[in-house]
Amino acid sequence: MAILLLLNQVDPTLLEKHLKALPDCPQVRIWPNAGEKNDIKCAIVWKHDEGVLNDFPNLKLIASYGAGVENILSDPALPENVPITRFVDDTLSSQMAEYVLAAILNHRLHITHYRELQAATVWNSGEFLKGKNVTILGMGELGAVTGKSLVQNGYIVSGWSRSQKQIESIKSYYGDDQLRLSVSDADYIVCLLPLTPATTGILNKELFSHAKKGAHVINVGRGDHLNEEDLLDALYNQQISSATLDVYSTEPLPSDHPFWKHPKIHMTPHIASATDKEQVARQILENYNRVLNDMPLNNQVDPEKAY
Amino acid sequence: MAILLLLNQVDPTLLEKHLKALPDCPQVRIWPNAGEKNDIKCAIVWKHDEGVLNDFPNLKLIASYGAGVENILSDPALPENVPITRFVDDTLSSQMAEYVLAAILNHRLHITHYRELQAATVWNSGEFLKGKNVTILGMGELGAVTGKSLVQNGYIVSGWSRSQKQIESIKSYYGDDQLRLSVSDADYIVCLLPLTPATTGILNKELFSHAKKGAHVINVGRGDHLNEEDLLDALYNQQISSATLDVYSTEPLPSDHPFWKHPKIHMTPHIASATDKEQVARQILENYNRVLNDMPLNNQVDPEKAY
Repeated sequence: MAILLLLNQVDPTLLEKHLKALPDCPQVRIWPNAGEKNDIKCAIVWKHDEGVLNDFPNLKLIASYGAGVENILSDPALPENVPITRFVDDTLSSQMAEYVLAAILNHRLHITHYRELQAATVWNSGEFLKGKNVTILGMGELGAVTGKSLVQNGYIVSGWSRSQKQIESIKSYYGDDQLRLSVSDADYIVCLLPLTPATTGILNKELFSHAKKGAHVINVGRGDHLNEEDLLDALYNQQISSATLDVYSTEPLPSDHPFWKHPKIHMTPHIASATDKEQVARQILENYNRVLNDMPLNNQVDPEKAY
Repeated sequence: MAILLLLNQVDPTLLEKHLKALPDCPQVRIWPNAGEKNDIKCAIVWKHDEGVLNDFPNLKLIASYGAGVENILSDPALPENVPITRFVDDTLSSQMAEYVLAAILNHRLHITHYRELQAATVWNSGEFLKGKNVTILGMGELGAVTGKSLVQNGYIVSGWSRSQKQIESIKSYYGDDQLRLSVSDADYIVCLLPLTPATTGILNKELFSHAKKGAHVINVGRGDHLNEEDLLDALYNQQISSATLDVYSTEPLPSDHPFWKHPKIHMTPHIASATDKEQVARQILENYNRVLNDMPLNNQVDPEKAY
């Protein structure tokens, strides 16, 4: 029995170390050196090559290395009847909540602006922005924790999701019909949706046109949630005042991309949801033991819903 | 009967407007046009000229325009037996708490660093800093609200003050003997003290030498709490990793001051504790009515303690 690390664009060294440090860890192999294919019971997966998971006839668990599973589900040759789990942890959620709070505080307190004034040796003070209405698109684990953190910090938070949610102090909008309404009063629009065909390009001209004029957009979901051209247009015509972006359709963002030099766009290089490798190791080994003992899995993905 | 606005370096227009908008507001006069001096029952004061308060024989209340009163108490010719009040409000405290949280998040998440990378078209991601120990020097109203906000956001908070404080989840250090100890484990040292002879220059070489190596210093008290030369030395020898400064010994900071171009210093132009003029007007008129009716005052200053 063995666990296979099947990771593209991620260095497996740290995860391997954390797995091996746990008691009862089976053999760990690192793709493409999978060894005897019948041994592989569990694959830890990130941006795997199409069809490769079919090479392992005894696979019992496909564990996503991250919170998102769109890279797994988009494989047309995904083995059937193998459960998929995703990574959900407090570190990731609290880290995301911190990032979103930092982005909002930076905007409200004009911190980046003062940084630029400092560089230019200009003393010019202003007031904090008053607007504290935040709408979070996507009220899963990350959205809920982020929303609760913002409520605690004095923000008026609404959430939009596929189905209605009951979360204290957070107004729930749901379904396609309420999407426009959900952003109509928001000073900040935060995207924390899973990427699905229905949510691809959801941050677009149509949505921006129903937003409060001058709203700030924060994309911490996936790059493909955002229609980049539509954002540039909305910034140009001031329908959207500014944006904080952590994710991009192409990462790293190509050096000739207009976002780099845009004065209204605050970029970070996909840092808001970096995976805590020690936590990943713990969760996956727990599910590995569960699947071998026919116990229900933690954080199992429903392929129909794509999360 | 009249209220006198005796403000230096502050435009009185907005405060006058907010005072006049309140019911039962007496006549408002703006220094130096004080009119008949016997009329003046209350002076709203900011950086007044020495001795000027003695011109008003019927003065019943000296109301500080801001939270600090050192400018009032430093007047050697201050009229005796006239009570002094200071401005304390939730807006100021929550604003201060937001500023300190923003400063810490910016440091922990490397937001300013990413801003510089963006300007240089460099994609290079890192992890959030783990250190979450914060020591707040000064546990008055601002320190307590800031500390509670940080605790809510997952920080481990200690406070140092003149006398012992009982605040939930905040360890209390007190007295000169415990000052060094209070900063020995802090990743962030936040100064929110009142400025008194005992606290002038408290952020100095001696204190830095007892801090955890690589601590980040946040000065939101008064500029004179900080020994500027000692900070530059501590940054140079890396005992202190970086600093966020909102207040300075001379404001605006002279354009040839080394802080402007220092890569480890994040400057803002005294924005963390900007006074909400509407709140000032309400509080002072309330105290004005109290003093006329021999009622106890809100937020009265003890001149012995200087706060």
